[in-house]
Amino acid sequence: MMKQVLVDMDGVLADVYSQFSRLELGETGTVIDIESLYGKLESEAFPNYEKHVRSTNFFRTAPVIPDSVGGLKYLNEKYNVLIVSSATEFPDSLKEKVEWLNEHFPFIKWQQIILCGTKNSIKGDIMIDDHPKNLDYFEGKKILFSQPHNMYMVKDDCTRVNTWQDIINIL
Amino acid sequence: MMKQVLVDMDGVLADVYSQFSRLELGETGTVIDIESLYGKLESEAFPNYEKHVRSTNFFRTAPVIPDSVGGLKYLNEKYNVLIVSSATEFPDSLKEKVEWLNEHFPFIKWQQIILCGTKNSIKGDIMIDDHPKNLDYFEGKKILFSQPHNMYMVKDDCTRVNTWQDIINIL
Repeated sequence: MMKQVLVDMDGVLADVYSQFSRLELGETGTVIDIESLYGKLESEAFPNYEKHVRSTNFFRTAPVIPDSVGGLKYLNEKYNVLIVSSATEFPDSLKEKVEWLNEHFPFIKWQQIILCGTKNSIKGDIMIDDHPKNLDYFEGKKILFSQPHNMYMVKDDCTRVNTWQDIINIL
Repeated sequence: MMKQVLVDMDGVLADVYSQFSRLELGETGTVIDIESLYGKLESEAFPNYEKHVRSTNFFRTAPVIPDSVGGLKYLNEKYNVLIVSSATEFPDSLKEKVEWLNEHFPFIKWQQIILCGTKNSIKGDIMIDDHPKNLDYFEGKKILFSQPHNMYMVKDDCTRVNTWQDIINIL
């Protein structure tokens, strides 16, 4: 039986830092230096976080993380892939996330999508996520995808990856 | 630690048969005798199923199953409750389902809601569902909530309940 891989959306497939930066630039004219955000959660890093994360089309128009399309296609042929996204806190994001996946990752079927509040009740063998709070509860192999907020974290029980090429190399 | 109960929405909390019957009556003037639908899936029972299930507000305005509010409140105090609904096939239903839960079951938090494609990757100790296809994959205690489509089914590994009072009596 194929192993099951749980793949996060925001910060692993969707480049939400770029999306926040773009909106912040449009709103305030401020160019944000990503390295200055190391160690800060998105909600701490972006002054207009609450407004932007709840705005229409925030998730629908998010850029795709480089190489994630080819990377996820590779995983989808070798593993049983589930896309698992924390989303029920933002009801407007739900449809946007499904449509976004349909556009950029058309090989992912609706049967493979889970939109939840917390991820600690989803079964899997491997989890790829940028948030240690999700990986902490997971009992299988934990892969931490580098994002500015987790750059200073040392997690001995996780394998850190910086790119989708890194994921392909180890899975 | 509290046991985890997975509670289905359509057919357990939301009275989708009544909703389909109401819409069918409005569309064609046909009064549908529920007993005549025994053994038929919703998609077989209602001539305009596809049109209605995908129509705006179908889920948002569905009636609540009798006694489910008090019953779910009871479960929510005694168990770790997760609402698990097959929904990603119908992207327009996603926000409607969260809003419907917020309206009728305000004690359910967004952290407790899982909207998925298939339910076989959700962990739990007890599952309440009207669809045997969901219960079949489940490893814990299986509770089959009676609905017309499952009335002729004999499932030895499930406990059949006809009402929310039955659920309270056994859980």
